[in-house]
Amino acid sequence: MSISIPEKGEALYEGKAKIIYATSDSDLYIQYFKDDASAFNAKKKGSIADKGVINNTLSSRIFEFLASNGVKTHLVKKLSDREQLVKKVTIIPVEVVMRNRVAGSLAKKMGKPEGTELKHPILEFYYKDDALDDPMINTDYVTAFGLGDEKEIDIISAEARKINSLLINFFKDHGLDLIDFKLEFGRYHNEVILADEISPDTCRLWDSKTGKKLDKDRFRFDLGDVEESYREVLGKVMEE
Amino acid sequence: MSISIPEKGEALYEGKAKIIYATSDSDLYIQYFKDDASAFNAKKKGSIADKGVINNTLSSRIFEFLASNGVKTHLVKKLSDREQLVKKVTIIPVEVVMRNRVAGSLAKKMGKPEGTELKHPILEFYYKDDALDDPMINTDYVTAFGLGDEKEIDIISAEARKINSLLINFFKDHGLDLIDFKLEFGRYHNEVILADEISPDTCRLWDSKTGKKLDKDRFRFDLGDVEESYREVLGKVMEE
Repeated sequence: MSISIPEKGEALYEGKAKIIYATSDSDLYIQYFKDDASAFNAKKKGSIADKGVINNTLSSRIFEFLASNGVKTHLVKKLSDREQLVKKVTIIPVEVVMRNRVAGSLAKKMGKPEGTELKHPILEFYYKDDALDDPMINTDYVTAFGLGDEKEIDIISAEARKINSLLINFFKDHGLDLIDFKLEFGRYHNEVILADEISPDTCRLWDSKTGKKLDKDRFRFDLGDVEESYREVLGKVMEE
Repeated sequence: MSISIPEKGEALYEGKAKIIYATSDSDLYIQYFKDDASAFNAKKKGSIADKGVINNTLSSRIFEFLASNGVKTHLVKKLSDREQLVKKVTIIPVEVVMRNRVAGSLAKKMGKPEGTELKHPILEFYYKDDALDDPMINTDYVTAFGLGDEKEIDIISAEARKINSLLINFFKDHGLDLIDFKLEFGRYHNEVILADEISPDTCRLWDSKTGKKLDKDRFRFDLGDVEESYREVLGKVMEE
């Protein structure tokens, strides 16, 4: 299937890790991956060499894998080292977190050691609002505050659980344990589709053999080997 | 219906506002209401004159009203000014909050003014754990951490929504707006029943005409008229 590539227009939005550009096609954006890294709602800032290139490659690979398994995503095509052509979605202001094992904020919150097994995955909703520090919400909040409707909640929940099942196996096949990850969805015409990215910035990934953390926690908590760990994930995922 | 009153035994548990006593009937407790008041997970402490007497009277009245509308509760009988005979439940470590309007922590969390209308009530779950500051959870947490099972979640959710509908009208008939409130449920033989108390300690109640706060927020935020406000709720609810 050949896709005609639209021309890149003006930058519409610059986030912590990406820039969104308009294109000559009113239905498409270009998503550009930066090396900038931030954590704790941008209270910690820095840069990870080549992160943009690595995350673009990884996220493109993962979104293609999900699409081949029936998940609707915003990805049209990887364009270059740092650019993806994506569908022009309106982001739903609800972040979804799927958790397979206790880690990060959940460990602190529930007083359990990192790595504790859960009886089943946990799906969480957060209100995407930097000024409010992305507070945890639930499905009642989504409709009571008009952030989304019931049909959207059902689609997002079902897709998040399906994506989790697919990605647990995907990463396992590449020697990685998927501990938890964050998803964002967007409205595109009459559909709700997966948007944003899936990368070591948005997932906790531990080496299946050694348990070594190979994700943004290395940056968050100054664990060292930050670039090396992102590269290690890239190497594992992209090997056939 | 005559009930034989068992003898009061030893104090089994002293909480922030109540003491639970064993009785000569292995299936029953005595719940004693204290005047002690605390807020912000006991960071603020004090006492409200006659609070125990008022809350026992109010909670008994409200639990009787709920029971007469088909809600299963732990209340057997009000015994005295400060004592209730109650069924010996095992408290499920999940607090349920029902919210009809934005107030308290929800206002801060979502950046909305107190009193903001919601499109529909919000049901929230919190993990009942003082050391962890009662963190917000969701239904997935309940089963993933083994705090309760799916059937219990379904009963608790349905009962909480039903109790909310009943109490909105109950308080409205007595000149009070029910803004939000907290519930606790317990296991009793093979049932899940309403336990704890419903009072100005556990509800936000605003005067329907003046909007004046008539609940524990007066103590929490040093608004004055604390005892008077508890008495005012008592007067309104107990008038026929």
